[in-house]
Amino acid sequence: MSRLLREKLLSQLCMTIVFAGMAGTAAQAYQADQPFIDEQKVQAEWWARQDEQIDERLAQLEKKYGKKPNIVYILADDIGWGELGSYGGGILRGTPTPNLDTMAEQGIKFTSHYSEPSCTPTRLALLTGRHPVRTGVDIVLWPGQKQGLADEEVTVAEMLSKAGYKTAMFGKWHVGELEEHAPERQGFDYAYYGLYNGKPYSWANMEAYYQAETIDGNGYEYDFPGSFKDYEEKYGIKVHGHFEGIKGKGRKEVEPLGPTSMPDMESGNIKRIKKYIKANAKSKQPFFIYWASYAQQMAASPREFRGRPGYDVPNLQSAELAQHDDYVKELLDTLQKEGVAENTLVVWVSDNGPMYAFWPDSGYSWLRGGKGEVYEGGVRTPGLAWWPGVIESGQTVHDMISTTDLFTTAARIAGVKDKIPSDRIVDGLDQTALLLNGNGHGRRNYIFHYSGNRLAAVRMDNMKLHIKPGSKGGLPNMEVYNITRDPGEKFGSMYHHLSYVVPFQRIIGKHKQMIKKYPHRVLPSGIF
Amino acid sequence: MSRLLREKLLSQLCMTIVFAGMAGTAAQAYQADQPFIDEQKVQAEWWARQDEQIDERLAQLEKKYGKKPNIVYILADDIGWGELGSYGGGILRGTPTPNLDTMAEQGIKFTSHYSEPSCTPTRLALLTGRHPVRTGVDIVLWPGQKQGLADEEVTVAEMLSKAGYKTAMFGKWHVGELEEHAPERQGFDYAYYGLYNGKPYSWANMEAYYQAETIDGNGYEYDFPGSFKDYEEKYGIKVHGHFEGIKGKGRKEVEPLGPTSMPDMESGNIKRIKKYIKANAKSKQPFFIYWASYAQQMAASPREFRGRPGYDVPNLQSAELAQHDDYVKELLDTLQKEGVAENTLVVWVSDNGPMYAFWPDSGYSWLRGGKGEVYEGGVRTPGLAWWPGVIESGQTVHDMISTTDLFTTAARIAGVKDKIPSDRIVDGLDQTALLLNGNGHGRRNYIFHYSGNRLAAVRMDNMKLHIKPGSKGGLPNMEVYNITRDPGEKFGSMYHHLSYVVPFQRIIGKHKQMIKKYPHRVLPSGIF
Repeated sequence: MSRLLREKLLSQLCMTIVFAGMAGTAAQAYQADQPFIDEQKVQAEWWARQDEQIDERLAQLEKKYGKKPNIVYILADDIGWGELGSYGGGILRGTPTPNLDTMAEQGIKFTSHYSEPSCTPTRLALLTGRHPVRTGVDIVLWPGQKQGLADEEVTVAEMLSKAGYKTAMFGKWHVGELEEHAPERQGFDYAYYGLYNGKPYSWANMEAYYQAETIDGNGYEYDFPGSFKDYEEKYGIKVHGHFEGIKGKGRKEVEPLGPTSMPDMESGNIKRIKKYIKANAKSKQPFFIYWASYAQQMAASPREFRGRPGYDVPNLQSAELAQHDDYVKELLDTLQKEGVAENTLVVWVSDNGPMYAFWPDSGYSWLRGGKGEVYEGGVRTPGLAWWPGVIESGQTVHDMISTTDLFTTAARIAGVKDKIPSDRIVDGLDQTALLLNGNGHGRRNYIFHYSGNRLAAVRMDNMKLHIKPGSKGGLPNMEVYNITRDPGEKFGSMYHHLSYVVPFQRIIGKHKQMIKKYPHRVLPSGIF
Repeated sequence: MSRLLREKLLSQLCMTIVFAGMAGTAAQAYQADQPFIDEQKVQAEWWARQDEQIDERLAQLEKKYGKKPNIVYILADDIGWGELGSYGGGILRGTPTPNLDTMAEQGIKFTSHYSEPSCTPTRLALLTGRHPVRTGVDIVLWPGQKQGLADEEVTVAEMLSKAGYKTAMFGKWHVGELEEHAPERQGFDYAYYGLYNGKPYSWANMEAYYQAETIDGNGYEYDFPGSFKDYEEKYGIKVHGHFEGIKGKGRKEVEPLGPTSMPDMESGNIKRIKKYIKANAKSKQPFFIYWASYAQQMAASPREFRGRPGYDVPNLQSAELAQHDDYVKELLDTLQKEGVAENTLVVWVSDNGPMYAFWPDSGYSWLRGGKGEVYEGGVRTPGLAWWPGVIESGQTVHDMISTTDLFTTAARIAGVKDKIPSDRIVDGLDQTALLLNGNGHGRRNYIFHYSGNRLAAVRMDNMKLHIKPGSKGGLPNMEVYNITRDPGEKFGSMYHHLSYVVPFQRIIGKHKQMIKKYPHRVLPSGIF
């Protein structure tokens, strides 16, 4: 046996031992997708060393604070890549975001955060750590639909409950209308929410819509009826107002819908969130807050934030963004004032790109495409992470991160990674190393982009493949981008060489084999 | 007479007096275009107050240093909006620009700097302060063409010479081949330059081109001949090498062209520039340096900068950018070391957007379009201003600034605004207030974008009109963008209301009337 071969075998043996050792602490016991399993084998040694340090750091924190870290996930609505000042928007586009920019300066700004391309799917991804297609829901839910977050899915709230967390949800639920889909039945101790499935538009701030028509003179033509009653009659569906839900007690409709429901919900929620933080800051239990803000659905545009100096006027989206920017500051300030900031991870991400259907009242992206598309403009969204004293300030992180990762990362931080179910694929990766150590410590080198139930694009490292419907001369119709050089997806036909395409074929093949082994959930569809 | 009316008249009287008083100091005696004259009437009082303070500040500086401030203008080549790290590119796109980012942090980053859409026109704009169409040249010059920078044009170097400056030029001239066009005949005491009119490609780093073919496998197909001799035979035109020119003594060809001419010129020039600064730092005369760098024409890509860690490999453009980034630091460091940084204004701008014809070796823009187009990607380019102790650090400035403004601003800083010729239109505005006082102090609320000799687009405040060839139903073919909300020019058909279009018609009408009064120069065209 040559010396080289001996060393190679020895190194492999070491890796195997380290890898086996990881299972008890940081490594996943859950079922990851094959591309990650493959990568993990390659990186085992290096990741194990990082995980050891992370375990130590988390243990020190727990010793200091006597409990696990609090976790706050803020999910914004339709805010595009480039909307915030820190992403090149802000004042330049007439929508200053000073407080979100400060949050970015004090922590991490992710340049490659990926969500699903639309509202319901991203919410499911965050809650379950899985591509929504696996959960049986791959669409944006409209009122009356039977589909929703299945009972059998394990949510981040359920997992954190098992870790002893108090859990609360505020805002736009939009993952199912039935009681079985509701937050208080899906792991949240407390929830104040609206269902806000996509239609009717009358759920939104009608006053804003009507104003828009007058103000912008853009001749809005919506097919929404004049009132909820009209809608209920037309479609035979009950339109619900806002609910308060309590685990074990069910939910109560506490507010009817009205023309200012969305802005009122938004301003009410920040008050509830601050109260919740104050009430739980000194508790022996850590807390988990999931705030699904309406911002910046311009339907939630509040009167008092319209026409603020320096903001584009009379654009409704800018008013909503101004309000949200203030409220995020109020939340962070409350954490500071209550003395729990250094034991609280706050992650802020947007659910998808701008909804250009509402232009010029929608948001914007510097990238190609928008909400509903798997071009970068649809799925690459702003993302911030903040944890004073733990996450180093002033970082711009280019490593890929997915909304599904928030699920798995929460499990790791709460010390319940072993509670992640192993009878299904979980797509979310543990990105604690990325949060704590920054650039180069991400664990994700691929991401699958689904459009409904169709695998529509894949990113691997610097390259991205779009799988387009139809074929070209008998071959699949595709576009291949160097997404690092060409984030705007302008040049899609230069990299069709097999050396670029074959690795994609390989990863897609493995992904599909795993789907055969762990098939997607099938849920009853149609209207109830 | 009512009190209100009395106050209004009094205020108008004051403005008239102030305005008349301005002529002797900061106000233009030269012939501006009508839209600026109109705006100046409105702003007279407010601008006069600023100008008084600026005069005082410049006088203090002159007292302190015993001379006028040095001026360094760096013109980069084909660097798009978003290429630099500070504009959202940098590491994200595999081309870190740490030193240019530091320059931005220490001074101003302009988000709305506008150049002409291509190489020769922007060089003329910077040198003459005029839209190139007025100077009789509205094209990118190719070898053998008679056209060029006319003797009758007054260059920034000629103006600064009158103010007692030593003047020097380094790099890519590209505004005419004949001796009468040359820098040493156009106001520069010293010049080390290549003509580098667009063709032949063999002027460029052939070695790089040939390498590209092998490295990238993109099947480059250029029509360039194998050698300069071939080209000379084919077109009957002499291909010149690098010149050294001295005012009053003419020029000498000091280096023949060869496969590494462009990278050698680049590395040679930074040495010459540093030497020049050292030699002139303690002089009683201030200096003016115009450095027309090749960066980032990937043709100038130097071997030793290819494959630097962290840079996209084997992309040639990234190597060129890496080199330029280093050289700018060397220049700024030299100013610091020689103790003249606080008496030196350095402005860095790019001549136009990325030349996508060379993709994937070209640069990139986040905006729509590239070099040769009047979409933002062609004409909106990065721009930085640096003057320690005078320009406040950390500024992101959104006010519009044009490359033509560099001419007029230099005249103001050197105290020779009265030497700007008044027998022709000068488009450049005095932007000293913007440099010294930042956002909101810009004097430009419009910009005309020419494509060759055709007025192709106009920006006014937040709005931009594209005048497209052809007509639609008997009406002009146009696109109108809200360029603040939509910098990517995605939504061009939403603002055709007359309230948006009429102001454009008005400003274009005034612009055209002025052209009738001051017609464009007519130069002999064709091949010499």
